[in-house]
Amino acid sequence: MNHWIFLFGQLLKYFLLNTIYCYANNEIVPIDNAGVPVSDLLVQRGYGIFDFLRVAHHQPLFIDDHLDRFFNSAAIMRLSIKESKEDIKNIVATLIEKNKLEFAGIRLLIAGGDAPDGYTIAQPHLIIIEQTLAPPSHQFSTKGIHLASYEYQRQLAEVKTTDYLMAIWLQPWMKNKGADDILYYQDGSITECPRSNIFMVTHQNKLITPAVNMLKGVTRKNILQVAANQGIEFEIRDITLSELKTAKEVFISSSTKRILPVSQIDDQIYTLSNSNSISYIIFTYLLALEK
Amino acid sequence: MNHWIFLFGQLLKYFLLNTIYCYANNEIVPIDNAGVPVSDLLVQRGYGIFDFLRVAHHQPLFIDDHLDRFFNSAAIMRLSIKESKEDIKNIVATLIEKNKLEFAGIRLLIAGGDAPDGYTIAQPHLIIIEQTLAPPSHQFSTKGIHLASYEYQRQLAEVKTTDYLMAIWLQPWMKNKGADDILYYQDGSITECPRSNIFMVTHQNKLITPAVNMLKGVTRKNILQVAANQGIEFEIRDITLSELKTAKEVFISSSTKRILPVSQIDDQIYTLSNSNSISYIIFTYLLALEK
Repeated sequence: MNHWIFLFGQLLKYFLLNTIYCYANNEIVPIDNAGVPVSDLLVQRGYGIFDFLRVAHHQPLFIDDHLDRFFNSAAIMRLSIKESKEDIKNIVATLIEKNKLEFAGIRLLIAGGDAPDGYTIAQPHLIIIEQTLAPPSHQFSTKGIHLASYEYQRQLAEVKTTDYLMAIWLQPWMKNKGADDILYYQDGSITECPRSNIFMVTHQNKLITPAVNMLKGVTRKNILQVAANQGIEFEIRDITLSELKTAKEVFISSSTKRILPVSQIDDQIYTLSNSNSISYIIFTYLLALEK
Repeated sequence: MNHWIFLFGQLLKYFLLNTIYCYANNEIVPIDNAGVPVSDLLVQRGYGIFDFLRVAHHQPLFIDDHLDRFFNSAAIMRLSIKESKEDIKNIVATLIEKNKLEFAGIRLLIAGGDAPDGYTIAQPHLIIIEQTLAPPSHQFSTKGIHLASYEYQRQLAEVKTTDYLMAIWLQPWMKNKGADDILYYQDGSITECPRSNIFMVTHQNKLITPAVNMLKGVTRKNILQVAANQGIEFEIRDITLSELKTAKEVFISSSTKRILPVSQIDDQIYTLSNSNSISYIIFTYLLALEK
């Protein structure tokens, strides 16, 4: 009898609390057993990088692009790890197989590692986490989001560091403004949102996105590729806050959101895109890229 | 026989590999068993604060001042923990008793906590680590250190965040300059070193230290108290890089270093202090404060 209760419990546990595995400390372990040592530079000094990609139908999306950016971040931060891109792809494949999550997010993370003096990079290490993540809708959003602009320049902007100090600290400020996300600008030019790139479309249907002082997203790259392939005119250059006000359409992009139209930035209201809009056209081609 | 081997082993372990305990996850555990969950906001988003104090002859130094600053950092960062100042003092006392380190450093750390959405502060938690730390010399340093100036403003400067991204990233640049530490400045005014405050003494023996855009050190507070008590004239205000060049003496201060004279900043050489110098006089009073 006890045996059957145990078996039933195991089955219940399997279906309800399926153990999620991650890669930490050079091995694949249940995520609840994985921790970053309290002596690590990531914990003590905030020194680390990451990248984040989506899994759809058990397949990692655009993993080569994410690995290129991840290794570029690591090189700039002087964080060298023993694992190669091929090793990481294999670990990701193993996690996807073991965790059996059809739709998920994969977080690749390099922690600065245990530093004997608490200050010098010694032996960084790789952590890979898979987590459930609902896929973004296949329907183009007709709601639009509201951004609040804030003057701030991310440190080492071309690196995907774990530094989201200001983004998280600003959450109450943002909510107080009634906004859904923050738009950073510096010296009058817009750069990025904390977790997204930004694009504007002019009344002449030209697509423009900032060139510098921000992280170059994989979805941003795909959007520019779609524009090039579909003959949509585009420019990669500074956009001032005042030029942004003249936009016909504004949207943000990221791996987890694809494209989200912007309905408001500060006091400026934007007309929502329709099926003839540049953002909608790009959205449909982005969807096709995931096939 | 085996019993004696076991006992001998335990004794050997006790003397050679004395287990160091820390406070994590609401309990006192061996430090090797303590880790920050990979899902924590500190690991994923660099959101955390800390404070660091010295232990001399098994006594924590200036713990009330450090706790005041720690709770101030926590309030600004909206990190609330269930432990009170009194609770923390008791945990620190327990760690000092268990770890039996005569001279040590205590790191108080608040991690942002497990955030269900990976972005919103949920339940922050307290970690307290004790580590061996040789006390600074009782002799005033006659060597002096070399600083290299760098334009940079720390994020949320009045908070002791775990953000040392730029400080660590700049280490190779600093070493390439032949310098021992970095001096941050912003808009032409000096602010602080990554882990120290800075003071200058004029040829009229006036002590000056920056007022804003930096972390207010506990040793800085003690130095200003000594100056007030000893009738040393002082000012708390902006210091430009060009005024700094005119200084008779320059020194930095921190809990782990007390006072270190500065012999060079960029190309500017400073005469080393002697026993009549303001920095030497303050040093002797600082020593007395630790009694």
